[in-house]
Amino acid sequence: MEEPIGQGVEPQDAKPSFATNPEALRFIPLGGIGEIGKNMFAYEYGGEIIVIDCGLLFPEQEMLGIDLVIPDITFLLENAERVHGIILTHGHEDHVGALPWVLNELDLPVWGTRLTLGLVRNKLAEHPYLPPVQLHEIDPDATLELGPFTIAFFRVTHSIPDGVGMIIDTPAGRVVHTGDFKFDQTPLLGQRTEVHKLVHAASTGVLALMTDVTNVERAGWVPSEREVAASYDELFADATGRVIVACFASNIARMQEVLNVSARNHRRVCVIGRSMRGNMDVARQLGFIQLPYPDILIEPDQVASYPPEAVTVLTTGSQGEPLSALRLMSAGEHKFIKLSQGDLVVISATPIPGNEDLVYRTINQLFRTGANVIYQGHDQVHVSGHGNEEELKMMLTLTSPQFLIPMHGEFRHLVQFRNLAQSMGYADDHIYLLHSGDVLEMTADGAQVIGQVQAGRVMIDGLGVGDIGTVVLRDRKHLSQDGILIAVAGIDSQTGEVVAGPDIITRGFVYVQEAEALIEDAKTVVVNTVRELSVDSSTDWESAKSAVRTALNRFVYERTRRRPMVIPVILEL
Amino acid sequence: MEEPIGQGVEPQDAKPSFATNPEALRFIPLGGIGEIGKNMFAYEYGGEIIVIDCGLLFPEQEMLGIDLVIPDITFLLENAERVHGIILTHGHEDHVGALPWVLNELDLPVWGTRLTLGLVRNKLAEHPYLPPVQLHEIDPDATLELGPFTIAFFRVTHSIPDGVGMIIDTPAGRVVHTGDFKFDQTPLLGQRTEVHKLVHAASTGVLALMTDVTNVERAGWVPSEREVAASYDELFADATGRVIVACFASNIARMQEVLNVSARNHRRVCVIGRSMRGNMDVARQLGFIQLPYPDILIEPDQVASYPPEAVTVLTTGSQGEPLSALRLMSAGEHKFIKLSQGDLVVISATPIPGNEDLVYRTINQLFRTGANVIYQGHDQVHVSGHGNEEELKMMLTLTSPQFLIPMHGEFRHLVQFRNLAQSMGYADDHIYLLHSGDVLEMTADGAQVIGQVQAGRVMIDGLGVGDIGTVVLRDRKHLSQDGILIAVAGIDSQTGEVVAGPDIITRGFVYVQEAEALIEDAKTVVVNTVRELSVDSSTDWESAKSAVRTALNRFVYERTRRRPMVIPVILEL
Repeated sequence: MEEPIGQGVEPQDAKPSFATNPEALRFIPLGGIGEIGKNMFAYEYGGEIIVIDCGLLFPEQEMLGIDLVIPDITFLLENAERVHGIILTHGHEDHVGALPWVLNELDLPVWGTRLTLGLVRNKLAEHPYLPPVQLHEIDPDATLELGPFTIAFFRVTHSIPDGVGMIIDTPAGRVVHTGDFKFDQTPLLGQRTEVHKLVHAASTGVLALMTDVTNVERAGWVPSEREVAASYDELFADATGRVIVACFASNIARMQEVLNVSARNHRRVCVIGRSMRGNMDVARQLGFIQLPYPDILIEPDQVASYPPEAVTVLTTGSQGEPLSALRLMSAGEHKFIKLSQGDLVVISATPIPGNEDLVYRTINQLFRTGANVIYQGHDQVHVSGHGNEEELKMMLTLTSPQFLIPMHGEFRHLVQFRNLAQSMGYADDHIYLLHSGDVLEMTADGAQVIGQVQAGRVMIDGLGVGDIGTVVLRDRKHLSQDGILIAVAGIDSQTGEVVAGPDIITRGFVYVQEAEALIEDAKTVVVNTVRELSVDSSTDWESAKSAVRTALNRFVYERTRRRPMVIPVILEL
Repeated sequence: MEEPIGQGVEPQDAKPSFATNPEALRFIPLGGIGEIGKNMFAYEYGGEIIVIDCGLLFPEQEMLGIDLVIPDITFLLENAERVHGIILTHGHEDHVGALPWVLNELDLPVWGTRLTLGLVRNKLAEHPYLPPVQLHEIDPDATLELGPFTIAFFRVTHSIPDGVGMIIDTPAGRVVHTGDFKFDQTPLLGQRTEVHKLVHAASTGVLALMTDVTNVERAGWVPSEREVAASYDELFADATGRVIVACFASNIARMQEVLNVSARNHRRVCVIGRSMRGNMDVARQLGFIQLPYPDILIEPDQVASYPPEAVTVLTTGSQGEPLSALRLMSAGEHKFIKLSQGDLVVISATPIPGNEDLVYRTINQLFRTGANVIYQGHDQVHVSGHGNEEELKMMLTLTSPQFLIPMHGEFRHLVQFRNLAQSMGYADDHIYLLHSGDVLEMTADGAQVIGQVQAGRVMIDGLGVGDIGTVVLRDRKHLSQDGILIAVAGIDSQTGEVVAGPDIITRGFVYVQEAEALIEDAKTVVVNTVRELSVDSSTDWESAKSAVRTALNRFVYERTRRRPMVIPVILEL
């Protein structure tokens, strides 16, 4: 495998000797620290291992052509016989999305709550080649015993229902692993974060808190989902045409809200987008979404038969994704939904950093259809699923941990969390800013990073898992900037004459019909360079190619100030 | 020229007959409406034309490899003898940056204020091939007569000093063209927007207001630059190591502020970044930046000889630009500035939409050096140069125009401005949301779009101006996603045998050392496909290539689920 990019850690000790301290608990993040995505965390005690979550990361801008990124699980593969299984906190992609690839290599049982497993079952069904997987449902009020680990659960409020955090008891002490959480006192789907379980856990001592810090940069508390509901009530009451709501396909609370407000305003609801329809089905089957009345849902091809003021469309595309239903609507290209004046589009999400350009472009296009568009700013049409600064402080107050390990954040979030904890009196040496692969060893006497295991990013492109690395990405980047110029010549190895070609082929470099003179001159450069080489039977063809490449690079840069990738192809005849 | 992309307008009537209404004033935006960038606006009366501004647009994400975008000036070229010249509002790139290319094609005089011309002179000097340009200095308290246009100026507050708006009198009526503005009552460099001139103009009637609407989505008023100064005072007073401030190279007020606060805190200032040093020199020569004492500036190689608490570094890179000094510092690769614990980095700018990913990545890296980083959020270390919602309303109140034309905004900003104007009682048919190339004809009796001239985006890549269009960009996109596969074979045209090769060359597709079997199988696909073609002297080589391409496309997709660009090269021997 090529060198992994990003925060890949060199394998200093792929199989750490767990002999270091037999009385200690070790925490080994395989992803999800120093990045937002691919959450995967191993806990090890006495040579036995449990894994929490198994998420994916959506590719960053420079990962050209990459579909998904999953954690490097070399450490788990090398210790497979010691791993009890994977326990899931909730059903979001960044916590469960890598399961199809990981379960293809590792035969492990999976534990999760009812909704989480429902969504996972749907996902695994898309990968029919997978071996059968043991899925075990969690009762959040029961405990799970796995070797030396006794795992209790506490319900958390998040933007998807049925999420849990974990209180993990080991002989070395107790860890609280929050998962994604906030403290909404009036969540729409009725699940408040179970603070009493946290306080109870704290009463007999918490060794370490592993906590979500995504929103540490935001002051105060996240407004309640009820405020979103109030905004919706106003917007729907005033709307005279169709209302189109775009949100994340996993935002089940928001989907319920749209159903409720639509029913109150005498609108049927059409759900568009494969992933959203799938999630809606699972959530309904498991009782997490309640239809206000049985036939409120209509199909896309029925929309046209209802008056505009009697229709709500619930769709994906809140991130401006190029092929999403919302993008198609904005371009007037959606088969069933043609927007026009009087329609109202509500973008019920915040752009993920890096997506702003796509999101704003979509909003501009939506306005051009004549529709009105509501997006972040004036109205409270979205709230985050992650707690803000004061909520993070509340989590510290409730759990009173000895050691603090921020998770679910880029490096700046970890630093800001350290600042926050220091402001609450925590000493610097009780706060650990970790990297993927770090092995943090903890006992009541102290904690320290004792080494690293292999960890990093495995990129998935098509069927390829981990076969794309820095070289391929660097080439894609180069090709994307100035394209490619290929020079082909057949050379008589006896005479050194160019007897076939030279041909010059370019893509992404110049518009060929306007660059004929340039192409002809490039051919001359090839012929002259070959002539000067005085090719004969002793010629080293690699250095001949290199000479042609150098000559063409110089010629092309002088003429165009561009640097396409230059590929000389010499056929020796 | 290839079809221009983006918002290019088809040339419906490249040379409009100006006979339509000889008594009317026409406004023709050539850029800067429906986009933020490449501001360029033509006014025409009685067949005579003036042009305001001549800016560039920084390329959008999908314009792969493009350096800059400038306006299509076909309309001006075709009416060159009618154009009096270009009048500049201020010295920002999006208002003056296209001058080197436009003046290379059009011999026009240019008017601007003292600082604006100073910056333009610097810019033109980088293009020594240009013919001599007539630059005329504006006195903002005088008027300029150009044919039927009498142009008076009003000073405006913006993030660069010496900016002006224009009050343009014509026989058809008076237009107020704001340029970029805000109403800071306590700007750092002492120039307040001259409201008295606006009120005076309004007293005898304003036909139309062309106004900057960039910040229409933001409520209230922009905080004063003095609040930034107050934040700086606190940050500098507490700083124990070096302070590094990153801002836009054109933010001359911010540069003055950093000089002032550094002097108060006994720090020398080192300016890093070619464009910032150039602007600093011009602004000092023209008296727009005052050094607190003569030898406050030090050179980069002197930094190490001062104690950390006696040094401020002023640098570019606030947008996370890959080659900027700040990025190099964040990566530990800057020749003179090595960051470490105790240093403070202040990012004194907001990410431009689309740059967030780069900016946050830079911030994460800066934190990893051990330095502290202050960025938007907790501290007021940056304010925008464009007025917010209430300031736009104030401009309407001051000028009381008959017609409103929002500029300097994407389409959603234009729509939000229309909403704002409607809330102040303006009727829908007095507000015009224009596109590049629209010809808006105005008299006291009414206004209407009477047609379009050619307008759009001209992309610059290296020395190429306008030679890159949709085909080349589509190829760059394709290459960036899955790379390229080139198959080369020499074929004996008599026997149909592959007598040289086939060779398979890939870039950006797979890591070749791991894909040997795939490459070998691809060669077999080529050989088999050629064999099945039964090549002979009557063979159509284009369709032979097409068959090889189709076979390879299918083979590669089945094996990898990737779609590289496939280029078959057949040398006929």
